Amino acid sequence: MTQSCIHYIIIFMEKLIECVPNFSEGRDMGVIAALRRAAEGISGVALLDYSSDPDHNRSVFTLLGSPDGVSEAAFRLCRVARDNIDMTRHSGAHPRMGAADVIPFIPIRGSTMDECVEVSRRVAGLIANELGIPCFLYGESCTREERRDLASVRRGGFEGMPHKLLQEEWAPDFGGRAIHPTAGVTAVGARKPLVAFNVNLGTPDVRAAKSIAKAIRGSSGGFAHCKAIGVKLESRGATQVSMNMVDCDSTPLHTVYEAICEHAARLGVPVTGSEIIGLAPADALIDCAKHFLKLGDFDRDRQVLESRILEL
Amino acid sequence: MTQSCIHYIIIFMEKLIECVPNFSEGRDMGVIAALRRAAEGISGVALLDYSSDPDHNRSVFTLLGSPDGVSEAAFRLCRVARDNIDMTRHSGAHPRMGAADVIPFIPIRGSTMDECVEVSRRVAGLIANELGIPCFLYGESCTREERRDLASVRRGGFEGMPHKLLQEEWAPDFGGRAIHPTAGVTAVGARKPLVAFNVNLGTPDVRAAKSIAKAIRGSSGGFAHCKAIGVKLESRGATQVSMNMVDCDSTPLHTVYEAICEHAARLGVPVTGSEIIGLAPADALIDCAKHFLKLGDFDRDRQVLESRILEL
Repeated sequence: MTQSCIHYIIIFMEKLIECVPNFSEGRDMGVIAALRRAAEGISGVALLDYSSDPDHNRSVFTLLGSPDGVSEAAFRLCRVARDNIDMTRHSGAHPRMGAADVIPFIPIRGSTMDECVEVSRRVAGLIANELGIPCFLYGESCTREERRDLASVRRGGFEGMPHKLLQEEWAPDFGGRAIHPTAGVTAVGARKPLVAFNVNLGTPDVRAAKSIAKAIRGSSGGFAHCKAIGVKLESRGATQVSMNMVDCDSTPLHTVYEAICEHAARLGVPVTGSEIIGLAPADALIDCAKHFLKLGDFDRDRQVLESRILEL
Repeated sequence: MTQSCIHYIIIFMEKLIECVPNFSEGRDMGVIAALRRAAEGISGVALLDYSSDPDHNRSVFTLLGSPDGVSEAAFRLCRVARDNIDMTRHSGAHPRMGAADVIPFIPIRGSTMDECVEVSRRVAGLIANELGIPCFLYGESCTREERRDLASVRRGGFEGMPHKLLQEEWAPDFGGRAIHPTAGVTAVGARKPLVAFNVNLGTPDVRAAKSIAKAIRGSSGGFAHCKAIGVKLESRGATQVSMNMVDCDSTPLHTVYEAICEHAARLGVPVTGSEIIGLAPADALIDCAKHFLKLGDFDRDRQVLESRILEL
């Protein structure tokens, strides 16, 4: 049996989980490189993608591997973030409360949501105990319903956290009731896969992006599985509707994209392009192709070659 | 090691090829069921898809498996087609010359085009010798450059074949110079994957479909890797631009779809929908999503989760 076959056997016997940690540094290439190095070279973990945005001042890493390997990588990344990112000097367009801002674990193959919840609790405990950073559990890992939504957990931002942690209902799940002085607070949790989807507008005035974000997000009456904010992209002289699409089967990318185009047209603002941060499931994109090509009867579960090969 | 792991090992060690045979029967459910049964239950072969169209009067099967298994399935299907389809009584919108009209073999994984050429020669020999049906080799298997293009090989159709086979340059590659009286002639070959993509027009007048097909196909000056004909869909009171997209990396589906929409709009004819017959590679669809969502920097080789998992 060849080496590559042995490799396949290992992969297919293993539980696979994904981790997509977000760090509050998108400008300093030295810090970003240090984070990258921390994610590499851990047995059983692949760094699939990393992406930095100077206007968000934020970097997103995508890790895939065994639960133990991915946990170890997430913890090492947090340590590097704590040692290199000073939140008292951080500014950026994206909401944030910590150097390691949010650390979600996602079941991919051979693993369950419960296992990812377990992993998130273990990692949050380590971050609090070993790194001195208080942690909230969010998403499927939440210990109170009002902590399920990341936006609620993060409300107040880094600057508001010292006060928030002292409120009775906002005692951290792990760690004390004072922020880490430079690394703030970290949210750790388990969730389903999501698509980080941003649509860019050709205007420096952020009001259009904010108004469109409000119109399309579920929390203010828009699409159920769409979270959206309007942000300014200073370096590009542009603005952006920045989204998390948390269930693309129910609320597809194309539905939201077309709604944004309609709103933008009414406001007289051009849609200049879109971006997906990190990875997206093939189905989320194939559904868009089906919509735009009017492929009414196309059955993505039967008619996509690669998924049929995998199925075998 | 579990049974399913053993199964994975077998699949990954095996050469995988695809075969997409087309048969000239799309109406008689008894014959279609007999064809389906012939394709099932062969060790090492999966019947991934089958699709029948009453207006084309044609069925397309998609087989995946080992070269030996797929060859055996293709041969058995041809025998059932010969015994059950009478071309002297066949009518349909799609060009055709035989009961088993065209049998392409496609390298998928661990196999080469040369191996598929070899398979096509072997199967064509069997069809001629065992079933008494003369065969042309086409595509990558062609023995003369003018037989590379299926449309050239098939020109004249079933009705024209008795005369064509007697022409000096059209001696079959296998079999004698007379058609099988009821099964006609079969084209067998090897080719790259293609996407069978049809766009439907909301008019019963076939002139728009024919004029659009002529404008977009490479052979009359349109898109290089697009083959197209205009056909009438009697049962639906509609018409169709029926295409083979033979290189979606170079000529993407969305480019051709948008060109068809523009031509149709100029002719005042509505585009009512599209269809993909059989299977399509995920990348051909993901490229469409990227185009329509304006995902300028999206890197399909890095940012699609499933392909990264496979890569591991």
